[in-house]
Amino acid sequence: MLDKLNWRYAVKKMDPEQSVPEEKVEKILEAIRFAPTSSGVQPFEVFVITNPELRARIQETAYGQPQITEGSHLLVFAAWDNYTAERIDAVLAANEAARGPSETLAAYYERLKGMYLPRTEDVNHGHAARQAYIAFGFALAAAAELEVDSTPMEGFEPEKVDELLGLREKGLRSVTLLPLGVRAAEGDWLQGMAKVRKPSEELFTVIA
Amino acid sequence: MLDKLNWRYAVKKMDPEQSVPEEKVEKILEAIRFAPTSSGVQPFEVFVITNPELRARIQETAYGQPQITEGSHLLVFAAWDNYTAERIDAVLAANEAARGPSETLAAYYERLKGMYLPRTEDVNHGHAARQAYIAFGFALAAAAELEVDSTPMEGFEPEKVDELLGLREKGLRSVTLLPLGVRAAEGDWLQGMAKVRKPSEELFTVIA
Repeated sequence: MLDKLNWRYAVKKMDPEQSVPEEKVEKILEAIRFAPTSSGVQPFEVFVITNPELRARIQETAYGQPQITEGSHLLVFAAWDNYTAERIDAVLAANEAARGPSETLAAYYERLKGMYLPRTEDVNHGHAARQAYIAFGFALAAAAELEVDSTPMEGFEPEKVDELLGLREKGLRSVTLLPLGVRAAEGDWLQGMAKVRKPSEELFTVIA
Repeated sequence: MLDKLNWRYAVKKMDPEQSVPEEKVEKILEAIRFAPTSSGVQPFEVFVITNPELRARIQETAYGQPQITEGSHLLVFAAWDNYTAERIDAVLAANEAARGPSETLAAYYERLKGMYLPRTEDVNHGHAARQAYIAFGFALAAAAELEVDSTPMEGFEPEKVDELLGLREKGLRSVTLLPLGVRAAEGDWLQGMAKVRKPSEELFTVIA
């Protein structure tokens, strides 16, 4: 990814005639799946949408941003609405299935429940969303490495996307969209423009 | 990074005799600097700490996790406590400096102020923190690509780290720690253990 940091940009216009190859999409999903999360809980799901009608309806909730239908795939990142005992117990069960029973792990996740369960749904969803953003970062980095164009989007009405995908019944809330596609050869106002980033001195403080 | 997804893990014990080369740290910082953020605002700063005494004091706020002092560098991600007119205006100014004056951009950031400034500090900090998590994801992916070990950490007392680094006076709040170092050859209980991740069927829903 490091040699693609300048190649990638938030593509504003994608070529609807071109598709991202499935094997590249699979690799992006693997990067999401392997992204680290707090206590290994992976408190989110990702919806991979190619269906054109559904993408058109999601687009209506997202100020008509064209990449949602011009791209070939739309990823919707949805974070858990809350932590529950069942959800944490399932993480422990998966750990024990892979690594064998462990009292240390069982005690660890018991403590985690003690910490998470008394918190408000808002605090817990906020925490889950941050974990989804790590995976979102991994997806963006993986896409760049594969020279797959993508456009990170927060500009949409989450409640409407939740409704379109039936997320609330699944205990999920949409947090970000990521259309994947191929940048259009022309017509993108942002293409070729200087990338604007803060200078290192502004962003970093070294304390030696 | 894609071929390093299995190589990386949250190292529990680092070798205090070894350091991450500065040129690799610089590349990780570049990945952070180039990470995309909502409206290009980059609402965070990163503190790069090698100072052993300061790292020892931060370690005390982080349940004594050894990687903080066994690693060679500690990154502290700190998100803006709030959005302000001055901060958004500075983003517009940087954009115009790089790309020339633009009424469209000026109007865009004016609308952004209209959206952000009426919100509570909590909502705005939460939003800024999510952007920091994208960069945190980029840092983790870049470190893996460079075979630099790292341990993502949320287990620390943010108020105490804020105080140690004087963050509140700077309008910042610490959100994550990332020690960088070299995995110890032995003594890490997690090393060599099976990586536990949810199967694709659990994490992804394809809608074609």
